Amino acid sequence: MPVNKRKIFNDPVYGFINIPSDLVFDLIEHPYFQRLRRIRQLGLAELVYPGALHTRFHHALGAMHLMGQALNTLRSKGHLIWEAESEAAQVAILLHDIGHGPFSHVLEKTILAGVPHEYLSLELMKDLSRQMDGRLDMAVQMFEGSYPRQFFHQLISSQLDMDRMDYLNRDCFFTGVAEGAIGTDRIIKMLDVVNDQLVIESKGILSIENFLNARRLMYWQVYLHKTSICAEVMLVQAIRRARELAMSGDSVFASPDFSLFLNNTVTMLQFKENPVYLQSFTQIDDYDIWACLKAWTKHPDFVLSTICQRILNRKLYKIRFSDQPFDQNQFQEIHQQLRDQGISDGWHDYFMVLGQSSNAAYVSSKEHILIKMKDGSVCDIANASDLPTIKALSNIVRKYYVCWMKPLTLQS
Amino acid sequence: MPVNKRKIFNDPVYGFINIPSDLVFDLIEHPYFQRLRRIRQLGLAELVYPGALHTRFHHALGAMHLMGQALNTLRSKGHLIWEAESEAAQVAILLHDIGHGPFSHVLEKTILAGVPHEYLSLELMKDLSRQMDGRLDMAVQMFEGSYPRQFFHQLISSQLDMDRMDYLNRDCFFTGVAEGAIGTDRIIKMLDVVNDQLVIESKGILSIENFLNARRLMYWQVYLHKTSICAEVMLVQAIRRARELAMSGDSVFASPDFSLFLNNTVTMLQFKENPVYLQSFTQIDDYDIWACLKAWTKHPDFVLSTICQRILNRKLYKIRFSDQPFDQNQFQEIHQQLRDQGISDGWHDYFMVLGQSSNAAYVSSKEHILIKMKDGSVCDIANASDLPTIKALSNIVRKYYVCWMKPLTLQS
Amino acid sequence: MPVNKRKIFNDPVYGFINIPSDLVFDLIEHPYFQRLRRIRQLGLAELVYPGALHTRFHHALGAMHLMGQALNTLRSKGHLIWEAESEAAQVAILLHDIGHGPFSHVLEKTILAGVPHEYLSLELMKDLSRQMDGRLDMAVQMFEGSYPRQFFHQLISSQLDMDRMDYLNRDCFFTGVAEGAIGTDRIIKMLDVVNDQLVIESKGILSIENFLNARRLMYWQVYLHKTSICAEVMLVQAIRRARELAMSGDSVFASPDFSLFLNNTVTMLQFKENPVYLQSFTQIDDYDIWACLKAWTKHPDFVLSTICQRILNRKLYKIRFSDQPFDQNQFQEIHQQLRDQGISDGWHDYFMVLGQSSNAAYVSSKEHILIKMKDGSVCDIANASDLPTIKALSNIVRKYYVCWMKPLTLQS
Amino acid sequence: MPVNKRKIFNDPVYGFINIPSDLVFDLIEHPYFQRLRRIRQLGLAELVYPGALHTRFHHALGAMHLMGQALNTLRSKGHLIWEAESEAAQVAILLHDIGHGPFSHVLEKTILAGVPHEYLSLELMKDLSRQMDGRLDMAVQMFEGSYPRQFFHQLISSQLDMDRMDYLNRDCFFTGVAEGAIGTDRIIKMLDVVNDQLVIESKGILSIENFLNARRLMYWQVYLHKTSICAEVMLVQAIRRARELAMSGDSVFASPDFSLFLNNTVTMLQFKENPVYLQSFTQIDDYDIWACLKAWTKHPDFVLSTICQRILNRKLYKIRFSDQPFDQNQFQEIHQQLRDQGISDGWHDYFMVLGQSSNAAYVSSKEHILIKMKDGSVCDIANASDLPTIKALSNIVRKYYVCWMKPLTLQS
Repeated sequence: MPVNKRKIFNDPVYGFINIPSDLVFDLIEHPYFQRLRRIRQLGLAELVYPGALHTRFHHALGAMHLMGQALNTLRSKGHLIWEAESEAAQVAILLHDIGHGPFSHVLEKTILAGVPHEYLSLELMKDLSRQMDGRLDMAVQMFEGSYPRQFFHQLISSQLDMDRMDYLNRDCFFTGVAEGAIGTDRIIKMLDVVNDQLVIESKGILSIENFLNARRLMYWQVYLHKTSICAEVMLVQAIRRARELAMSGDSVFASPDFSLFLNNTVTMLQFKENPVYLQSFTQIDDYDIWACLKAWTKHPDFVLSTICQRILNRKLYKIRFSDQPFDQNQFQEIHQQLRDQGISDGWHDYFMVLGQSSNAAYVSSKEHILIKMKDGSVCDIANASDLPTIKALSNIVRKYYVCWMKPLTLQS
Repeated sequence: MPVNKRKIFNDPVYGFINIPSDLVFDLIEHPYFQRLRRIRQLGLAELVYPGALHTRFHHALGAMHLMGQALNTLRSKGHLIWEAESEAAQVAILLHDIGHGPFSHVLEKTILAGVPHEYLSLELMKDLSRQMDGRLDMAVQMFEGSYPRQFFHQLISSQLDMDRMDYLNRDCFFTGVAEGAIGTDRIIKMLDVVNDQLVIESKGILSIENFLNARRLMYWQVYLHKTSICAEVMLVQAIRRARELAMSGDSVFASPDFSLFLNNTVTMLQFKENPVYLQSFTQIDDYDIWACLKAWTKHPDFVLSTICQRILNRKLYKIRFSDQPFDQNQFQEIHQQLRDQGISDGWHDYFMVLGQSSNAAYVSSKEHILIKMKDGSVCDIANASDLPTIKALSNIVRKYYVCWMKPLTLQS
Repeated sequence: MPVNKRKIFNDPVYGFINIPSDLVFDLIEHPYFQRLRRIRQLGLAELVYPGALHTRFHHALGAMHLMGQALNTLRSKGHLIWEAESEAAQVAILLHDIGHGPFSHVLEKTILAGVPHEYLSLELMKDLSRQMDGRLDMAVQMFEGSYPRQFFHQLISSQLDMDRMDYLNRDCFFTGVAEGAIGTDRIIKMLDVVNDQLVIESKGILSIENFLNARRLMYWQVYLHKTSICAEVMLVQAIRRARELAMSGDSVFASPDFSLFLNNTVTMLQFKENPVYLQSFTQIDDYDIWACLKAWTKHPDFVLSTICQRILNRKLYKIRFSDQPFDQNQFQEIHQQLRDQGISDGWHDYFMVLGQSSNAAYVSSKEHILIKMKDGSVCDIANASDLPTIKALSNIVRKYYVCWMKPLTLQS
Repeated sequence: MPVNKRKIFNDPVYGFINIPSDLVFDLIEHPYFQRLRRIRQLGLAELVYPGALHTRFHHALGAMHLMGQALNTLRSKGHLIWEAESEAAQVAILLHDIGHGPFSHVLEKTILAGVPHEYLSLELMKDLSRQMDGRLDMAVQMFEGSYPRQFFHQLISSQLDMDRMDYLNRDCFFTGVAEGAIGTDRIIKMLDVVNDQLVIESKGILSIENFLNARRLMYWQVYLHKTSICAEVMLVQAIRRARELAMSGDSVFASPDFSLFLNNTVTMLQFKENPVYLQSFTQIDDYDIWACLKAWTKHPDFVLSTICQRILNRKLYKIRFSDQPFDQNQFQEIHQQLRDQGISDGWHDYFMVLGQSSNAAYVSSKEHILIKMKDGSVCDIANASDLPTIKALSNIVRKYYVCWMKPLTLQS
């Protein structure tokens, strides 16, 4: 490898991250990947945790770093892993998020309805492979799950993948939520492969349990934090309003690439048929949204400008949770508050939003964590030991909420 | 306060620990307290975790430091705390472990049978108060639970006391078991008092849950680690054998103060009636035991010298666990192994020991953690929220074990 | 204080930051201060250190936190500090950077020529005080240095101010440059006041020396890192070009507020005479610049679009350093490289830039650090002890550089 | 390697330490190495830094861990290192301190006069090699410096050896002196070999400078801390007195092995001629000394018992420093203080001790740190760059001191 490609990244989480190969270096240099420098991992969570400004760029590097460590562990336990496989696995995890758009869940809810980021990641990986003479083909297979040795896919995407390992670690580091720390080092040292399945040595059970607990804590404390939900709801409403205005002919500021998505409903079919959408997609990032939010604060439309001003100055909606779905009659007071702020009833659905949050996305009932017992047998973690909390953790919890714009004078 | 008493301790866990008052300074200087420098917090756990060499001295300072922070939090929430109360609470937590002997649980099992360390702590605190013109009387009341404002006692001894907060933090730091980290800062900031009861604000629930999980992990990973159990079993057998030899007239090396306990069975009554026992107790520490262990490696008695040599060179017993009590018939193989090592059947109970470990000491069904809800009401954490794991955590788990001396050539 | 104002910020650097008062809470909520959420502390350094995304918002909170600790230390040493003084000092440090624009040094070099950020900070503080019935007047005095007790000003701005303490700590944390860590806790505990001057107790000398060393390391390793310099040079050239185009009548994208500065040369006089400039200034942040950079990548002007594309995709200029000023004849090869890339000689000064960097801004020969000796006397640190490195550190080092656009195929 | 030898040690400093080979595992299990569990790295420094209880056992494991990382770095830069060499280098660093006795410098000053610990380490390594069929012969060569490839010896013993890297890191971690942290990771990644010499890449210069600064800070702040000096002086006097008593026929408690050294002056010649000395040496550790200190508190000799009681209860001598050697006339006041405490003039040299401390042991004028410049050339760090502090750091600083027993009522 040429000396100039033996780059090292400083990472406050792991100390240093080495670039393992020439190909990885070239991928990191590619504009598709550099774009991830401009997409935050946690969207608007910085409004709650001011340190949470880290990007998907950094996360992807971190996950690649952990992949290298995991593969070293497996090799040290006697599993043969070819150099090409090792590189492919690192490439696949490096690029696993490359299809994320700005504020991803927000955009998925508003503009990219029906087009999951995994699909876009795969398309962009294939595109990169085309640009690089097929050198990413094995990585694509591993990412898709079509590579024969399944455990590679599991390292990329499963309950114990390097994606989760890195993001939990990293999110906990940058938010400062110390309780979310997981024992990544120990978990990785406990990895093994049996019958082509990724497993954990039985003496790592407590670390896994801790990992599941930490993950659960991070969901409620960070990912589904009430203030983050409010900010995200507001952003969704702002974009929804901007689209309506745009589609009804009003002039709405947006960068050319973002404009394409603001003025069209781009389905998966369109992505497939017209490459311009994918190309434009690779041009947009958090800054496009922020530029809009700032410009829209001066838009003549009351709804749009009000919401944007309030996001920018952190005058966020308030939220109330419930274990049951709300009854519409519960909202009389809220409607009255909105009217008192001069908001006519026709606009109420921008300023009062119902929703639900659950940890369903994170608690998988399908995927299992497998434990390798001392006698060499493999069993599901839930059966591996007396771990009452494991079962408890697999409950899906759902919370209903209502967000609304409270008058500013009534802070709470 | 004279300048020379404004001492600061360096603490790798918290950075710095200030001495809050003159009285505290004098107590730290007292030989009773200096003795804690020579008593390790985790006994023989260093044989598993080589960093776990920290002492009860350091732990006591740390707990005092956290007490200061907790009281500041309560004051900032409007609770009036007199300066005298603040000092007394810090003194009480500083001295809460002063009655611990070397390898405390070991000694309690062998030599101090029936005399709990809490009793000795209280006696020594009273003795110190006598020496200091009654200046510790309020601290004694808080420690005993007789001081009118109950929450002080809860800060010293309860599910959320500063003792637990510090030892979990500290043990996790020095063992390097990263998963055991707890959010002490956040928990302390969430403390409040309602109706003279220590409570946690509801937004601290996740931190409490994490704290309980971390504690559980530390029990199984550290406090009840199989190798620690083996080492402790061996130490108990060594002392048991030494006593038998001593009582049957053999010469057995021991420092004069430790000798007193080795040659007598000292009951609580004797502690009360003859002050010499308490005075001798304040002279013994880990070094007395280590000096014996080293000297006994050369004792002519095979049992005593064998066990001591093996502790010193870390050739520990092996252990096997079971969820049910063992059947004596299961041990034929073990007896045969012992015979193969030249150990006659009469000695087998030194070299094969049955026991059980459980988290019962840590999982209290009696004490509750109270949560202060947003509406001001107080309820038990188990009812405060959807926390399936809280209940799961309160199960008492019991494990049965057999430890025995395996032949050295059959390492496992 | 109303409960809702007792907010706590999570800070990965210090754990938690408390809001000390009502007034501070209101200032943090103010749009002027919220704007700092959108201004990164280290500008383009994230291109070298991907974690360095932290903002002036977070830094200002951290400096305020340290100010609280410093004042507590001084009080504990017997110095009377009124509550109003304590609040004013915290307000002053909280707002010390409020006049920073996006990529501050860049803008100062291009658009705000002659208007230092300290001036703007002061104007904005005065404006806030007007808005809040004069409640910031004491803070303004402390910031300006006109408050009678000088040590307050020194805590805000001097060799040992809380600004430096926080930014060194924070920059080192987020870049991951572990060697830059300073012993903030110890330094703050060593602070004292003698004759109204901020001093350090003599037993803190080694910590101060370490602090100066760490600061020096951070300058060369981070603040004046060659890649940061290149990126900043490119940004300056992009803005310079955009201004030229704008002033010669070309259409150049910019948000309305940023436009005002792009199309005008705003002097300090104009700031004073026309409040619209200050108001517009409070509207611009890093996002305005990023939005321009992104939009300008498609501008028809070759110079502008090329530079912007290269910043965005991190194809940065190369740099060569020299201890002496360069001789113009040394650049023939560079000019040829530029010509080979199709750049006509008239444009070369955008693509080859000379400059110099020095630690002069950081090494003050005027300000001294004073040490309080054990006998109570005060002397300059350079004379306080055998510290050969202190003198060595005070040398001003100057480096000359040339940056230029190397052909992409010749990576190095 | 058998599964049971793939042990992992928890290390709070590095996370985990892997045992790299079968041989290393067997060495760690050996009683010679297990003895290091009972020898503290920093002797009596725990009286100042209560966390500083870590042992040479842990340090040796840590240095071995860093050696593995350093060799990986060198391999990644294209240097061929045979597996046997790698193991030998790790063995050599693992055992580099195996000849340390308890409180090493103290014993060297009193009992082992003239026998440096390096000599004993070498003898014990040779003995181990004999016991293990010569498997340590290459390690012995590397340790001695006779192995052809010199850089291995430099990794074991030089200005940049893994010994220093680990102990600075570890001492700083356990003392809590945050300012002593060094960038081990970065330094190791910057290692290279040119012409069989260990060098540092030029971009690591700042890290080296920081390393030298941190080392200097640790000397004055920890290793030569005034309280440590006092405690060590007292221990030396206690042992000196005990020897005098023993040699004049008094009964003085000591374990049999330590007795051998207490009652004899063991020269290097005797070590060579009579293997019993080396064998006894491998039996003694810190506990032997502590047991003596405790027993001696009750010895009828006033001098011995007084000093030992005061060490145990931390009533340490006071110290005064001077840049020049003291004039005997300066001590009238001290002599008077001693007489006031009832100490007759004949005993004054136990209770008032003169000495000097210097960083000469650490600042080598002979060994150089070599820098590999970008053009491939190698030069001394002092010439490599503008680093004024490097030269400043190489000054040898010498301080003279007097320690004496102050009356207890005059605390200061």
